[in-house]
Amino acid sequence: MSTPPDPFTEALKRGKARREEYRGLSYLRLTDDFRGSPKGGVAWKDVLVPGYPHIGRIFRLEQGLAQQFRRPFWVEEKVDGFNVRLFRSGGAMVALSRGGYVCPFATDRAPDFVDPAIFEAHPVLVLCAELAGPDNPYTQGGPSFVPEDVALFVFDMMRLGRPGFLGAEERQGLCERFGLPTPRLFGRFEVRDWRRVLGIVEALDADGREGIVLKEDAPEGHRTKYVTAWSGVYDIAVRAEDTVELPGDFFTGRILRMVLYLDEVGREVDAGLERELGRAFLDGLVRSVERFKRDAHVYHLFRCRFRERDNAVAFMAHLRGILGHTHLVQRRLEAERGYWVLEFEKEVPKLTGLLHQLFRGASIVD
Amino acid sequence: MSTPPDPFTEALKRGKARREEYRGLSYLRLTDDFRGSPKGGVAWKDVLVPGYPHIGRIFRLEQGLAQQFRRPFWVEEKVDGFNVRLFRSGGAMVALSRGGYVCPFATDRAPDFVDPAIFEAHPVLVLCAELAGPDNPYTQGGPSFVPEDVALFVFDMMRLGRPGFLGAEERQGLCERFGLPTPRLFGRFEVRDWRRVLGIVEALDADGREGIVLKEDAPEGHRTKYVTAWSGVYDIAVRAEDTVELPGDFFTGRILRMVLYLDEVGREVDAGLERELGRAFLDGLVRSVERFKRDAHVYHLFRCRFRERDNAVAFMAHLRGILGHTHLVQRRLEAERGYWVLEFEKEVPKLTGLLHQLFRGASIVD
Repeated sequence: MSTPPDPFTEALKRGKARREEYRGLSYLRLTDDFRGSPKGGVAWKDVLVPGYPHIGRIFRLEQGLAQQFRRPFWVEEKVDGFNVRLFRSGGAMVALSRGGYVCPFATDRAPDFVDPAIFEAHPVLVLCAELAGPDNPYTQGGPSFVPEDVALFVFDMMRLGRPGFLGAEERQGLCERFGLPTPRLFGRFEVRDWRRVLGIVEALDADGREGIVLKEDAPEGHRTKYVTAWSGVYDIAVRAEDTVELPGDFFTGRILRMVLYLDEVGREVDAGLERELGRAFLDGLVRSVERFKRDAHVYHLFRCRFRERDNAVAFMAHLRGILGHTHLVQRRLEAERGYWVLEFEKEVPKLTGLLHQLFRGASIVD
Repeated sequence: MSTPPDPFTEALKRGKARREEYRGLSYLRLTDDFRGSPKGGVAWKDVLVPGYPHIGRIFRLEQGLAQQFRRPFWVEEKVDGFNVRLFRSGGAMVALSRGGYVCPFATDRAPDFVDPAIFEAHPVLVLCAELAGPDNPYTQGGPSFVPEDVALFVFDMMRLGRPGFLGAEERQGLCERFGLPTPRLFGRFEVRDWRRVLGIVEALDADGREGIVLKEDAPEGHRTKYVTAWSGVYDIAVRAEDTVELPGDFFTGRILRMVLYLDEVGREVDAGLERELGRAFLDGLVRSVERFKRDAHVYHLFRCRFRERDNAVAFMAHLRGILGHTHLVQRRLEAERGYWVLEFEKEVPKLTGLLHQLFRGASIVD
């Protein structure tokens, strides 16, 4: 391997980068933010694929816009999926996960959503996209507007070898020219338009959608996000099965978001919302306890489809690698309507262990 | 000061004990469990006041009883207050908090509840009691059966100078003879009686009460506790104002308890419970946000009454000492119907700080 791009040589020395392998090709991955480069940046051969930076979140739209933006900003829908970066290597598309691993699933499926012609015309492009839908191998649930399988939404573009995003209009132009799917774009606003922006979020909330991402209209423009009350209940419902797996702040942080959102839009807490929130917490855990009683462990069932069988096999190997001791069971890998359908169980290890203790009658000091 | 009792000399060396002062008298306090002595044990002059040990909790009654007890056990009501140890020193009663501080509030009020004659007859006795009620200076809320002020419930007895509890019948006899208030006692059961014990807990649940403590009928007998679904909702409602102040597991642990309890008693989650749980979370935080918007900080209001003014002053000094930088404001200290009524505000510092940031429009990476 030739000399890796900055800052990998130094990051390796400091234990902030790791060597990974994908189909015989070795690459480096930043395991932490390092000297201004976000975690998940990759040295691919001798080229940097920049990491996707952390995006903060505002809890109050009016004050948040005033505080975060000096210039006009674009508002687009936030899609609840998992973040991938797509680029071309040796004539094929490769997809990286947020953490900087090659994702065999996203790499396999990319051609279903992205016309490779865009990389013929722009070989150094990196597409930043959300892969979202119920049949994804990482997260439970997905947005209501992707009723099956997954869909891909390109929301940012970068270039190989240099950090920073393309401007919004350049990106929008490329998406249009190459027919790339994108999140809904609500337009360009100024800070003083905050009531209109809040109206957009209220409509998303009523529609059971997650929220918005705000992007300053400037190269390297600042970004932030703002979510609906609905998304708080949804996140809790989706993750309640895992309760003890997550830091409890996952849940309380979402309730705080909801309360601040309701306060900002001037909506009172009503019996309907109370009940939805309570049910979000209880349903998931009740399901987990039932599963535990039936199967003696708690697990999630995932199902996703691949174009090529080899990629499904590589995906399971990849997941085993990143999950360590978490129990994974492949249930099915079969050809079905032009795809290879993979089904697997992923154990919820802490909750499984805790329920074992508790059902044996342990007395726990808390 | 004479030689402190075991294990204080060693604990001091290891940084596990600290010197404290109360009205010119110096004492030592175990700040951690140390060599089998629970945190909160105190060296009072040259005598050990044993710490009150940690009591674990079972989440399943049937399996828990089978696992925890080999012999019959007593079942009594668990009272939601704060734990104090009362003993006699120089003719007066002194009350220690769970952590081993002299509590000027409990010390002041002890004579309202405990006939000092018990210490004339048994000078080395230590009464372990719960001080519970809405007008206590430490915790929000309190049991519904203490509608005002506080009440004291003696639930264990120890002896100065030696760890371990008095047997149940000896304790019950002393409580009766000296008219000491106690938690409700449900009787003595065996492991095979688990359905009857569960019936007691179900009745407590229906009545909005916290649960039970189970104590093996033997000297040094094992103890554990088991709580109702109601107590989960109640705890969340009481602490939701503080949400970000607490580890999130405080909340998720309680939801897990509820779900396991409902499963054990064979009760389905219904709309009423869902709504209560959602409201428990939302009401408290809504109150905190309203308070923040009105007063620019989040705080709790406490009110409690003292027999002597000096003790109220000492209490405020004590609280300032243990709370460090947390803002405390004394609002009122006035004589009222034979007592000195103290009212003070205690800031909720993390939530106050976070809301300041968020209402200024900060963008937070989570």
